[in-house]
Amino acid sequence: MSATSELPPLDGERVTAERVQAHLDGRWAEVRDRSREELRHPLLAPVHGLSLEEHRQRTMEQARHLAKSDGPGLLFPERYGGGDDLGGALTSFEMLAHGDLSLMVKAGVQWGLFGGAILNLGGEEHRSRYLPEVISLDLPGCFAMTETGHGSDVQSLRTTATYDPDTQEWVVHTPDEDARKDYIGNAARDGRMAAVFAQLITDGASHGVHCFLVPIRDEHGEAMPGVTIEDCGHKGGLNGVDNGRLRFEQVRVPRTNLLDRFGQVAEDGTYTSPIEQPSRRFFTMLGTLVTGRASVSGSALSATKTALTIAVRYAGVRRQFRSPDGEREAVLFDFRQHQRRLLPLLAKTYALHAAQQDLLERLHTSFADEEASGEMTDRQELEARAAGIKAATTWHATEAIQTSREACGGNGYLSENRLTQLKADTDVFTTFEGDNTVLLQLVAKGLLTDYRSEFGSMDTFGMARWVADQLVETVVERTAARQLWQSITGIVSRDEDTDLHDRAWQLQTFAWREQHVIAGVARRLKAGVDAGGDGFDVFNDVQDHVLLAARASVDRVVLESFAARIEACEDTEVAALLDRLCDLYALSVIEAERGWYLEHGRFDAQRSKAVTAAVNELCTQLRPFASVLVDAFAIPDEAVGAPIALGDEHARQAMRDAAG
Amino acid sequence: MSATSELPPLDGERVTAERVQAHLDGRWAEVRDRSREELRHPLLAPVHGLSLEEHRQRTMEQARHLAKSDGPGLLFPERYGGGDDLGGALTSFEMLAHGDLSLMVKAGVQWGLFGGAILNLGGEEHRSRYLPEVISLDLPGCFAMTETGHGSDVQSLRTTATYDPDTQEWVVHTPDEDARKDYIGNAARDGRMAAVFAQLITDGASHGVHCFLVPIRDEHGEAMPGVTIEDCGHKGGLNGVDNGRLRFEQVRVPRTNLLDRFGQVAEDGTYTSPIEQPSRRFFTMLGTLVTGRASVSGSALSATKTALTIAVRYAGVRRQFRSPDGEREAVLFDFRQHQRRLLPLLAKTYALHAAQQDLLERLHTSFADEEASGEMTDRQELEARAAGIKAATTWHATEAIQTSREACGGNGYLSENRLTQLKADTDVFTTFEGDNTVLLQLVAKGLLTDYRSEFGSMDTFGMARWVADQLVETVVERTAARQLWQSITGIVSRDEDTDLHDRAWQLQTFAWREQHVIAGVARRLKAGVDAGGDGFDVFNDVQDHVLLAARASVDRVVLESFAARIEACEDTEVAALLDRLCDLYALSVIEAERGWYLEHGRFDAQRSKAVTAAVNELCTQLRPFASVLVDAFAIPDEAVGAPIALGDEHARQAMRDAAG
Repeated sequence: MSATSELPPLDGERVTAERVQAHLDGRWAEVRDRSREELRHPLLAPVHGLSLEEHRQRTMEQARHLAKSDGPGLLFPERYGGGDDLGGALTSFEMLAHGDLSLMVKAGVQWGLFGGAILNLGGEEHRSRYLPEVISLDLPGCFAMTETGHGSDVQSLRTTATYDPDTQEWVVHTPDEDARKDYIGNAARDGRMAAVFAQLITDGASHGVHCFLVPIRDEHGEAMPGVTIEDCGHKGGLNGVDNGRLRFEQVRVPRTNLLDRFGQVAEDGTYTSPIEQPSRRFFTMLGTLVTGRASVSGSALSATKTALTIAVRYAGVRRQFRSPDGEREAVLFDFRQHQRRLLPLLAKTYALHAAQQDLLERLHTSFADEEASGEMTDRQELEARAAGIKAATTWHATEAIQTSREACGGNGYLSENRLTQLKADTDVFTTFEGDNTVLLQLVAKGLLTDYRSEFGSMDTFGMARWVADQLVETVVERTAARQLWQSITGIVSRDEDTDLHDRAWQLQTFAWREQHVIAGVARRLKAGVDAGGDGFDVFNDVQDHVLLAARASVDRVVLESFAARIEACEDTEVAALLDRLCDLYALSVIEAERGWYLEHGRFDAQRSKAVTAAVNELCTQLRPFASVLVDAFAIPDEAVGAPIALGDEHARQAMRDAAG
Repeated sequence: MSATSELPPLDGERVTAERVQAHLDGRWAEVRDRSREELRHPLLAPVHGLSLEEHRQRTMEQARHLAKSDGPGLLFPERYGGGDDLGGALTSFEMLAHGDLSLMVKAGVQWGLFGGAILNLGGEEHRSRYLPEVISLDLPGCFAMTETGHGSDVQSLRTTATYDPDTQEWVVHTPDEDARKDYIGNAARDGRMAAVFAQLITDGASHGVHCFLVPIRDEHGEAMPGVTIEDCGHKGGLNGVDNGRLRFEQVRVPRTNLLDRFGQVAEDGTYTSPIEQPSRRFFTMLGTLVTGRASVSGSALSATKTALTIAVRYAGVRRQFRSPDGEREAVLFDFRQHQRRLLPLLAKTYALHAAQQDLLERLHTSFADEEASGEMTDRQELEARAAGIKAATTWHATEAIQTSREACGGNGYLSENRLTQLKADTDVFTTFEGDNTVLLQLVAKGLLTDYRSEFGSMDTFGMARWVADQLVETVVERTAARQLWQSITGIVSRDEDTDLHDRAWQLQTFAWREQHVIAGVARRLKAGVDAGGDGFDVFNDVQDHVLLAARASVDRVVLESFAARIEACEDTEVAALLDRLCDLYALSVIEAERGWYLEHGRFDAQRSKAVTAAVNELCTQLRPFASVLVDAFAIPDEAVGAPIALGDEHARQAMRDAAG
């Protein structure tokens, strides 16, 4: 217990929300401030209770309004009328998500996905012909990838685009109901063109999935010949986005409508590609779409910040029971349970914010380099990182918004207080732009690849030591008698003496788990394969470990980002406060995973309980800073919207006003 | 690991859904069947996308339709036109919740709360005068307890009812905005009378909270003089229910409008009560409302069953990736992770169903006895049980419906597939009819009372042994070196050898946790008080342990109910299947809490891992029975509604139809 009582009191009275905000806003602070101004516009104010058509119409109006600002164009190079600032563009999408999330998704479809497909999969001709109209929203478009029968398995899409050399056209066709394009944003009402993913067939041979531009509506809004458009109808949220289904009955488009950066077809039908291996080609094409995922994680975080702003402010003013001694009436936030519910979520939000900022900076650099050099970049590690962060932020949004709603009781259930809508709108984030479970498997695959290559390159000595290390772990696990073990070897005893607030210890503890689980997965996979198991069964037997490995890896990445950004923070008082918040993040993850750590002999029962005690103490210490920490998100009042969150006096006043 | 591989294969091919249903339906099977017929009526079919007013209107129409059936009347004695079958009434509310949950809540307000207040808090005159109109819905009413400033702390309500002996009237008054009645169902649109909870003042003295009948609208729907009615507006769900706010400006009602079973005021203003102590009187009055909570838990379970029916059926038909060997295309449910997500939730739903049935039977008996004898019954234990089960079922609903939505991916997000609406409608269940956190504290309070009394009655020998037991535990915890400990004493070693599927071991393991935590809470509370701590701080320091104790207690109660009902099941093949499901419930709870068990030396790392392996194996074993287990809920297709859940062929067909 001594470790936890060593914590000095936090002396952060002079730390203002503005100073924390300066740290959070980071590289694209200016973009954030411009977005904050935008969010004050009445057209972007959160509303509720609209009918489907009203909501769609309003969202399209908002999108047109947005098209007039600099935000969307930032995504594109200057020569097409853009602002050439990928990081800035993603930041402005992220900020947009403090408002109605339907607009963020609509914008993401138009500029991020549809525009992104043309930018990243098209050639110079496609870019210069279409991007200006995409940026100005004169050409509203769709991103038609998902099919009814195959959500996550894009390689198996069944829509075909067959080349007809006689007319030099593509014949785009939907062979059956399972192959119709499903859940396509912008399709039911506004889209005029779709970027359609289909199996490219020429000369009787299939060359895998490619992307084709297919007009779906004429200028009067009528479906093009051969195109059937259906409305997906009412959804659990995001009803401002007009999702629809598309079917193509032998629809013909010119040869040049193939977005041909990664695969070209000559007039005579000859297929060529800079990437020979079809599977690598496919994943390279898909990889250019990584920014879409980064947009989703940024938006999930923004919605989470809005929800926590509301819940934290409410917790500070809402009176609950009188204290048992009857002498004072406590507010919700005075209760340990309430601190326990909200503060670790706030800490995790800060941690994920740091990871998201790192991701944006890396993406920005990677794409800028590619654009400058004209050469393709291998972004596999970055894609895995984006996938992992998308899974982490979206599940976090689900949990944090749900908890915020519950923490506000019946008031949290009133639509005017926004939490239910935030929950409903973000709900699909965990399963779109890649189902989180599938994304985590992508992360794990990356880890295993790293692992195998490391394994392969080890010399005999290294190998022997690795095996020995594994054995030590196994022995420790099997006996689980840490005291006994320590008395024999003393090897691991230092661990127990380390202050729980030691960042290095926290990082090692996270990394140890990641390494341990991934090693276990590798061992099990190998054993399964060696035993001649069926591929599916071998995989399936370790699926839970695979997902655990991925989660552990994301946890580690997030902690590293958070720690590094605090390290780099020059405002020492802000850094001291965030240091404590980072402790809370690290220790609440360790607390949540303590079953695993105990099982694997990483620490003993006493230390495990000390972690819980430390989390409690950190909650007590941080509670007075909670409002500074949410105010630092600097979400304009107009976007927060919720009457229960507009300041102490404000809230009381609003309640009185509402009562007439 | 041997423990898990001892499991014989499940030979349940002949177990049909009908036979499982017979077990589940239990005592009120006939009521359930009648409700199933009701649910097939087109007026009760789930719809979505209605405007606020359309939804409210439809819900009121549904309620009027329902009033013509036998269901609602079951709650009331025959002499007032009822069916005198409390358990049957609660069962019919429960079944109703397979349809639109707005109707269930509207019905709960009218018959359960408003009618329940008159039945349980009123005298014979009130009952005979009002109940027939309540049953027929000719008198739509409200239950006006909650105030803006005080949600959970009913004893501190600030609305006053002051007796004026000159006119023999009550003057009902809202002193300030915090005291207005808030979130009152049936208030914004339909209610004509409200059961208003207010501080009773007579002869200048306050006698605590009592309930008064106050007309709020005349026959033309206009607010009565002095009554201000406000609309709470759009909510996150349940928009068919017209929640509103009520303020009273010196509103006068006759003396006889006091529901006076527990407190009477004579014409001259003299107050008398059969219960002298005001606090006991208050809790006795509140206790009669326990059936409302039982209704919420039943409804939460029904919504959960609907959601799992949808997710399980979809998991069985939705194809996902091809297997790694490319030879087969697996359905979602073939993946371990997917089994892991859904099957423990299904097992817990069965367990909670058993606990809910036990609760209904106990409530039925208790109220029937009271009605027969005319004497007041002490239902404290039953109230605590209802509170705990309400908290458990509603949080379970939140988790299970959320998981079901995610398990159905994008299809789960379409409103036609019902999951998002189920989630939105049940969301408030965790915080209304008692916030779950507050309810768990009620459970814990009961446990501590038990504990103290047990402690007090122990003789010297018993006391010494108890202290010794505590010491043993502490030693075991402190060293956490189980092997070492075992080699010295052998006391606890038997535990490690017991088959994990041994029901007695599971029950002991649950009970041990409950006892251990509650003992810890008692110790900590005593230590805090002995150290002269401030009452609030002492409580707050142990709040997380208090809540843990309550959860552990509910877990134990639920396992006991499930186990007992399987024991009593005469269909041995059904019992064998449910036995396995009960193992899954018990072991997944233990797995989730393994951090705690390891910390407290209840088992070692090897056994902890064996629990996880056993859960995996049980999932594999039960997967083929999942559809039988959801079919056994026997929810009519019309109520399930979701196209993705209407059988293999059905689903494919529906998809094709939808595509035109």
